[in-house]
Amino acid sequence: MQPKASSRTECPAACALETVGEWWSILIVRDAFQGMTRFDEFQKSLGIAPNILSRRLAHLVATGMLARRRYSERPPRYEYLLTPKGRDFFPVVVALFTWGNKHLAPKGEALTLADRQDARPLDPVLVDAARLTPITPANTVLVPGPRASLGMRKRLASLKAMNPHISPVAG
Amino acid sequence: MQPKASSRTECPAACALETVGEWWSILIVRDAFQGMTRFDEFQKSLGIAPNILSRRLAHLVATGMLARRRYSERPPRYEYLLTPKGRDFFPVVVALFTWGNKHLAPKGEALTLADRQDARPLDPVLVDAARLTPITPANTVLVPGPRASLGMRKRLASLKAMNPHISPVAG
Repeated sequence: MQPKASSRTECPAACALETVGEWWSILIVRDAFQGMTRFDEFQKSLGIAPNILSRRLAHLVATGMLARRRYSERPPRYEYLLTPKGRDFFPVVVALFTWGNKHLAPKGEALTLADRQDARPLDPVLVDAARLTPITPANTVLVPGPRASLGMRKRLASLKAMNPHISPVAG
Repeated sequence: MQPKASSRTECPAACALETVGEWWSILIVRDAFQGMTRFDEFQKSLGIAPNILSRRLAHLVATGMLARRRYSERPPRYEYLLTPKGRDFFPVVVALFTWGNKHLAPKGEALTLADRQDARPLDPVLVDAARLTPITPANTVLVPGPRASLGMRKRLASLKAMNPHISPVAG
């Protein structure tokens, strides 16, 4: 078997996809952000087969996105709560949401993300925390981190040589 | 066959996943952001089987993320370029990247996203474009948009009743 390319083992975006990239997992996390915690709530929301839901919940617990907690002793019943790691996934869900509303809702939005205080519609953009400047393909570049392998350093160098004017973005 | 739940047909995040949520598709888009355009570049980067790569590229062209352009007449050769719709997917890739670096790189980063001008590492956060305030589960709420179905309105109302203190985030 071929070893996996460094673009898959070292790129944090690829690792993120490998961890929670499965379609159902992301929708379960989305529903957890809406306050759902129980098996039957997820099942009703998603219209998902129980065996698939069980497997995806177990996977999200194993990867540390959700914590499983017993909320009833007799009968034994469990709920699933977002961990800090799971809560940190929020920008991914919002970025998908924003892109979907812009490009996949040509007749208008069915859902709008709004400010909790004044219900004003929000326009999510990604900025650098320090300078509050937008993060775009044009103004960013990928650089090797402290743990970059030789293979990853070579990859970054060859990308730069291939197309010096296009911003590399994720390894 | 059961009709799909409104949480899947009307939620823009779910629609986004349905359109490009497949693991390989997102990695191809990621590589396109790095300047790759040609079949063999993607193949070498991803270590993907040619038939799967063909299928994923065709899907990305069909969904309007990539445009296929002939760059050589004899022999006929094609390249794949990000469309504006594809370029708008950038925040999703960066959000995955950021989460992966925070939670899946315990020994340090292999890759860092940096400012193109001064190579300063960037700390991407999601803010509202108008007020530049961070967008979090705690300060956002989902409201029905102009195209919300009755089913979606009921869903939002029941989520609110279920857990009024947790911020609903994506339908």
